[in-house]
Amino acid sequence: MAENTLGKLFRITSFGESHGPAVGVVIDGLPSGIDIDTEVIRQQLRRRRPGQSIYTTPRNEADEFEILSGIYNGLTLGSPVCIVIQNQDQRSNDYDELAQIYRPGHADYTYSAKYGNRDHRGGGRSSARVTAGWVAAGAIAEQVLKMYVGVEIVAWVDSVYGQQCPQLPSISRSIVDASAVRCPDPETSSRIEKLIEDAKNEGNSLGGVINCSIRNCPAGLGEPVFGKLNARLAHSLMNLNAVKGIEFGEGFEASKMKGSHMNDSFYKDESGVMKTKTNHSGGIQGGISNGQEIFYRLAFKPTSTISLQQETVNKQGENVIINSTGRHDPCVLPRAVPIVESLTAITLLDLWLENKTGSIK
Amino acid sequence: MAENTLGKLFRITSFGESHGPAVGVVIDGLPSGIDIDTEVIRQQLRRRRPGQSIYTTPRNEADEFEILSGIYNGLTLGSPVCIVIQNQDQRSNDYDELAQIYRPGHADYTYSAKYGNRDHRGGGRSSARVTAGWVAAGAIAEQVLKMYVGVEIVAWVDSVYGQQCPQLPSISRSIVDASAVRCPDPETSSRIEKLIEDAKNEGNSLGGVINCSIRNCPAGLGEPVFGKLNARLAHSLMNLNAVKGIEFGEGFEASKMKGSHMNDSFYKDESGVMKTKTNHSGGIQGGISNGQEIFYRLAFKPTSTISLQQETVNKQGENVIINSTGRHDPCVLPRAVPIVESLTAITLLDLWLENKTGSIK
Amino acid sequence: MAENTLGKLFRITSFGESHGPAVGVVIDGLPSGIDIDTEVIRQQLRRRRPGQSIYTTPRNEADEFEILSGIYNGLTLGSPVCIVIQNQDQRSNDYDELAQIYRPGHADYTYSAKYGNRDHRGGGRSSARVTAGWVAAGAIAEQVLKMYVGVEIVAWVDSVYGQQCPQLPSISRSIVDASAVRCPDPETSSRIEKLIEDAKNEGNSLGGVINCSIRNCPAGLGEPVFGKLNARLAHSLMNLNAVKGIEFGEGFEASKMKGSHMNDSFYKDESGVMKTKTNHSGGIQGGISNGQEIFYRLAFKPTSTISLQQETVNKQGENVIINSTGRHDPCVLPRAVPIVESLTAITLLDLWLENKTGSIK
Amino acid sequence: MAENTLGKLFRITSFGESHGPAVGVVIDGLPSGIDIDTEVIRQQLRRRRPGQSIYTTPRNEADEFEILSGIYNGLTLGSPVCIVIQNQDQRSNDYDELAQIYRPGHADYTYSAKYGNRDHRGGGRSSARVTAGWVAAGAIAEQVLKMYVGVEIVAWVDSVYGQQCPQLPSISRSIVDASAVRCPDPETSSRIEKLIEDAKNEGNSLGGVINCSIRNCPAGLGEPVFGKLNARLAHSLMNLNAVKGIEFGEGFEASKMKGSHMNDSFYKDESGVMKTKTNHSGGIQGGISNGQEIFYRLAFKPTSTISLQQETVNKQGENVIINSTGRHDPCVLPRAVPIVESLTAITLLDLWLENKTGSIK
Repeated sequence: MAENTLGKLFRITSFGESHGPAVGVVIDGLPSGIDIDTEVIRQQLRRRRPGQSIYTTPRNEADEFEILSGIYNGLTLGSPVCIVIQNQDQRSNDYDELAQIYRPGHADYTYSAKYGNRDHRGGGRSSARVTAGWVAAGAIAEQVLKMYVGVEIVAWVDSVYGQQCPQLPSISRSIVDASAVRCPDPETSSRIEKLIEDAKNEGNSLGGVINCSIRNCPAGLGEPVFGKLNARLAHSLMNLNAVKGIEFGEGFEASKMKGSHMNDSFYKDESGVMKTKTNHSGGIQGGISNGQEIFYRLAFKPTSTISLQQETVNKQGENVIINSTGRHDPCVLPRAVPIVESLTAITLLDLWLENKTGSIK
Repeated sequence: MAENTLGKLFRITSFGESHGPAVGVVIDGLPSGIDIDTEVIRQQLRRRRPGQSIYTTPRNEADEFEILSGIYNGLTLGSPVCIVIQNQDQRSNDYDELAQIYRPGHADYTYSAKYGNRDHRGGGRSSARVTAGWVAAGAIAEQVLKMYVGVEIVAWVDSVYGQQCPQLPSISRSIVDASAVRCPDPETSSRIEKLIEDAKNEGNSLGGVINCSIRNCPAGLGEPVFGKLNARLAHSLMNLNAVKGIEFGEGFEASKMKGSHMNDSFYKDESGVMKTKTNHSGGIQGGISNGQEIFYRLAFKPTSTISLQQETVNKQGENVIINSTGRHDPCVLPRAVPIVESLTAITLLDLWLENKTGSIK
Repeated sequence: MAENTLGKLFRITSFGESHGPAVGVVIDGLPSGIDIDTEVIRQQLRRRRPGQSIYTTPRNEADEFEILSGIYNGLTLGSPVCIVIQNQDQRSNDYDELAQIYRPGHADYTYSAKYGNRDHRGGGRSSARVTAGWVAAGAIAEQVLKMYVGVEIVAWVDSVYGQQCPQLPSISRSIVDASAVRCPDPETSSRIEKLIEDAKNEGNSLGGVINCSIRNCPAGLGEPVFGKLNARLAHSLMNLNAVKGIEFGEGFEASKMKGSHMNDSFYKDESGVMKTKTNHSGGIQGGISNGQEIFYRLAFKPTSTISLQQETVNKQGENVIINSTGRHDPCVLPRAVPIVESLTAITLLDLWLENKTGSIK
Repeated sequence: MAENTLGKLFRITSFGESHGPAVGVVIDGLPSGIDIDTEVIRQQLRRRRPGQSIYTTPRNEADEFEILSGIYNGLTLGSPVCIVIQNQDQRSNDYDELAQIYRPGHADYTYSAKYGNRDHRGGGRSSARVTAGWVAAGAIAEQVLKMYVGVEIVAWVDSVYGQQCPQLPSISRSIVDASAVRCPDPETSSRIEKLIEDAKNEGNSLGGVINCSIRNCPAGLGEPVFGKLNARLAHSLMNLNAVKGIEFGEGFEASKMKGSHMNDSFYKDESGVMKTKTNHSGGIQGGISNGQEIFYRLAFKPTSTISLQQETVNKQGENVIINSTGRHDPCVLPRAVPIVESLTAITLLDLWLENKTGSIK
């Protein structure tokens, strides 16, 4: 069974291959009567867009989208919203030799093993190009969360190749976008820019970490015992290409702690709002949001596509040497920031709708 | 919407509260005609059972299970298998004072915020007691995977409070169970035992890391783009109490690597089998198993229940001091090992069945 | 993939075989904080119970149920409610010869063809015994609908073997239960009682029609385009043993009508409430309730189990003559009335919860 | 929660409004490596197309479709297939007055009650125009069933306004299409043609019955207890506009029968194949196909759109008189034949894939 739908109540169904006619998404479960600002969709797509800076792949896609259904007179109808993004700069013949080769680190071999027939051009279905549809859907989810719940989601590049951003007080999207590599600390940003340039020149690629912060999320989101908030977020985000790890709050550090240190003490603030003195848990207890900031970190491996010589195997089972020449990102993290935000918004809106059905009133 | 069902084709539905009449599970989608060895279920339940050693909670539950349906003449019928485990050693009045208090680090407050009505006794629905049902289901899934696919799953305690096990060549369940704390290296095991004893005496608790290895898994499991193998495993395992992070292969280390180092080169071995020279990816590419060992690590926070004094808030919104007295595990990791294996088996069998429907032949 | 779960937000998972240890149900998605009256469950189970009159099977089952989870202090917890009904009067050896024979009209052959391993005792999983769990769940759904939405559901026997009840003004459950065969018209009831007695003496069985009326259902329930109210009800009810047809409003009569006759004209009544002058549609337009009475009819075939000689085939593929001797209902309709109501309530509560998520406010 | 997806393993997600930019479908779960003949899609769309004869609506839509994804080199990839059909002959201003009026028998009022914001043009989302996408998907499902399972599906018009076709031995699609109204008996066809012409001239519309026959379906399809073959088909087909009833085999006639008459005796034919002497059940026992012909009938109400004067209510709650002038079918049945076949194929392929997962081998 294929699984190209994400979500329970707010659901997105993804379609499209990197070098087919189009990629896109069908959004089902978007409530009716909501005013959608298409400019917000455009903005997030622009942040994900290839070719936006020298730190990203030179593939040039305007990523113009068309809404085929579900919106009438600017308001949602309660019916599915289909958004299509045409593929333009395809240069399929760049990929001719790759039809016969399983690139190291890529999904070429596993797709062949699973599906037999494979669209090798630009990675086909396994390409991060398909996330354009996710970002369009996420931009809609985010609007709804902002308007009706007040939630704010900000992701940023925390480290690349081990160069890590210091802890900063309050990070906004404008601060993030002030950096060409979406790292909010100017000094770290410069170091990362230099690292990426070097990697690019070297024909190599770099991994890194993206942090994500959700503010103003009400308590009560998350559906135990198999739809816990952290489980649902981990599921969504682990579907993002190149993600190899996720941790909430203290994450792996928590494995080195004692309970007396890890536990976040509750208190009521002067206005009677429930708060915690620390936030080691990352805003989640028992799989349910507690009203504090939700915080997690995502480990990205370096992009598989590099121009350096590599040993591998071809379709005929022969050992071969490969020199990739396709366009690629030396470091995917700057462009992955809006995708992380989008998957977060999609999952959070879904859980917010789910939570509405948990009480009868 | 509640989410107490895990899986798509092989599905388990969990029910029960810690101190209600029983906990249990309904398994749907178990193919017909399979010979189930109930002794294997008994074994895994025994490994999860409280009171099995001085390193675990003294709550005493025999964890006898009853199969109410779905098996006839020792063979599965293709109909749902309902397994019930009675709660015996309940001592509900141990928890009377907790009805009014939100313990730090616990799900008391978030359950109250979400559900209003809450069974506070022993954590109610949020208790790890409900994982007894998961383990029973997992023991069935594991049998099927072993018999029909040849898959082997082994989890172990890799570290507690930072004391980490060295890398060992091949870890089997009998090696793991030779250690009272399920750490396969005798020396590290001793150190961890000491740490847990100290924490117990101190009234404190400790976090740690569990590693899991899946061997002999065929290539092709995992369903892009939203049911990737790593995403599905992360989802299942993040639903396990106290898990704060998961990483596959190099995981967070990959964020500090270059592509030329991270990429695993393919080669055909002398018998023509596709292999990789390294396994930095943890056996997964593009969200699909590649036939190599699948490997991941789980960060567990220290148990929330400690006997030390803590500040918190009660139901009336007053700041109070709490001294927990309920029985608890100073370190959940030894008992979590079979739960990790169970959730892994449930997810893997599901994806194996899903993969069968991806081709028509 | 097995499908033993019904519903999307309010979901019931059915388990159990006729002569296994127990049958039952797990209800997930029941909102928290609801006061459940277990006496209502008992009542509906009593109306479904075998042995309640001379018109039903003499199998004697008290149908005592046990609630294992999900309710604390009389209120729902928002966690799954597991209800178990033990099988008592099993007389399994009554069925020994049936292990080898495919009874005409029964599911013996199709279950064998599909599952291989089959529990032949009393029909095993294909027995209507499993509907006891559905009725328990339905009694809960009905309470919620009554308390929070004001919905009333009444089903009755409209005809047996062609003897049809005249149209009556307003049928309540007490009127229905005043008849031993649940036909609200005393004269037709007498005729049907006589017919059933004759069929019983003859060793034969009879078909019939059950009508169902839903009153006070708000407008807006039903989820186009694939979860239309009529589609969802048809799905649920077609899963009930022996149902061979369903029609809404005019149903098959509508196929002989013109639009000018079929269309129900809208008007606003004196209090400004939207109404229709006629109700040919049965209260549904475009798959959504319009606020009028919802009405449908279900065709039941005669029970397959009869005592008359019949020709059939055995497991060895030999032509044989069969004389069934198992206990059975000569006419299932009187006992099917509460099952129809239950499936209706389950589906309606589900759609009511779904409708809550369609708007954002 | 919206429900615009049909199916479990083979799933179609429908999108589009009658007078929006396009209607379409995303097909997920189509196995990889299948050779798709787009001409078959074109053919079925042509049979559903408006304006194909004087008996159908004069709206003129070429129904050209575009495949955006999921097929490469003529073979399926195992990824989602998105098919888009542009809306061309929209004449939206034909519908201006309808924005304010709730037409009798239409979904105008219920959509307003449910969604608030409504695209009134041509019925918007409630229009049968959206079934174009279903037919495209059905044409694909049918190919797969034919190629890999040998299944044949034929539907035809059995009656219109009470004029009923006599029972015919073996009905093929070419016989059906030889009639302008898709009634396989030439004499009845003529009578029906005359009836439709009269209704058209009168500004009225007519109901009727469509029969559907599935041949060569293997035994074992259908998933008790909530995914029975008849329940799944009833669900799919009841989602088709204007369907008010469905019956399998003897259907409502069975309610007037005795068990001794209704039961279909099994026998093995000379080649050892299991057969039944009669087929009163319509090829289904216990919700599972028995290998015989599957047969059912669908009652269609007359189209709601008529040109005759009707009383109704407008948005402001005033009683008004309406004269519809939009283009419409005086009788939808001829065009509904391929839609019935398509929904049948979609459901059957889904259940065929589901059945594959029921056994482990």
